[in-house]
Amino acid sequence: MAEKAFQDYYPDELSHCYGCGRLNEHGLQLKSYWDGDETVAVFHPRPYHMAIPGVVYGGLIASVIDCHGTGSASAAAYRAAGREMGTDPGFRFVTASLRVDFLRPTPLGVPLEVRGRIREVKERKVVVAVTVRAGGEECARGEVVAVRMPEHMMPGRTTA
Amino acid sequence: MAEKAFQDYYPDELSHCYGCGRLNEHGLQLKSYWDGDETVAVFHPRPYHMAIPGVVYGGLIASVIDCHGTGSASAAAYRAAGREMGTDPGFRFVTASLRVDFLRPTPLGVPLEVRGRIREVKERKVVVAVTVRAGGEECARGEVVAVRMPEHMMPGRTTA
Repeated sequence: MAEKAFQDYYPDELSHCYGCGRLNEHGLQLKSYWDGDETVAVFHPRPYHMAIPGVVYGGLIASVIDCHGTGSASAAAYRAAGREMGTDPGFRFVTASLRVDFLRPTPLGVPLEVRGRIREVKERKVVVAVTVRAGGEECARGEVVAVRMPEHMMPGRTTA
Repeated sequence: MAEKAFQDYYPDELSHCYGCGRLNEHGLQLKSYWDGDETVAVFHPRPYHMAIPGVVYGGLIASVIDCHGTGSASAAAYRAAGREMGTDPGFRFVTASLRVDFLRPTPLGVPLEVRGRIREVKERKVVVAVTVRAGGEECARGEVVAVRMPEHMMPGRTTA
């Protein structure tokens, strides 16, 4: 996992996301990578990311699933097109829907392993199934339906 | 909305949640209230809670839906039992599943109005439908399936 993360290929104007933007100094700065046909991110929750003492906050888990999902969608679209990440025109995705099932309390204090499997790649939609493991146990499972970012949301491509 | 928020009735040991714990100084400190048969919370995203400039981060929206849902579940369980919030034994809920549909980009810089409708109240499960509006427009819609907190998760009730 020494290569560049998916999110490191995002252009500067799309790198302010609280969950994964490398330019958001207050944010989580999630980094996602290929691992064979799966995608993986490792995230270390901070001590204050708790639901109750010792248990990771569910909204944080939803957040890492969300950003890992859209990052994986972008990477999958490039791979499906046989193109290198970062080449133009860019494949940028936003979340249309997010589902998270919390299977058991996620222990706080160990890294979270976030894994994505690409379920579907279409022209304008990618579906990613995501699992979150902590200490070797699957604690949450989710699905991200990611859609191509509408042109009017692309910073710098509109006057709005 | 001058009354005490649902979350202000949580005992101290359950008030460290990153999303809604009054004792988590790093957290969002969401506050939820009854408004007739609905529940409502108003949240002001911080400038860095962005997805892209001008748009609220989806994981933040998922987080406020999550905490508004579990808070609403607790309040609904008390109301269904004809009891005042804060009386013992407490009705505490955790999220079993969370779904969010992002309907349109949520503008950053205006308060979010988070509204819950109680769909189902059972002994161990409450379902809450939640909408998020910004500037008068519905931007996201979600559902929280909340289940009674297992005894072993109750802080101070176990040696684990």
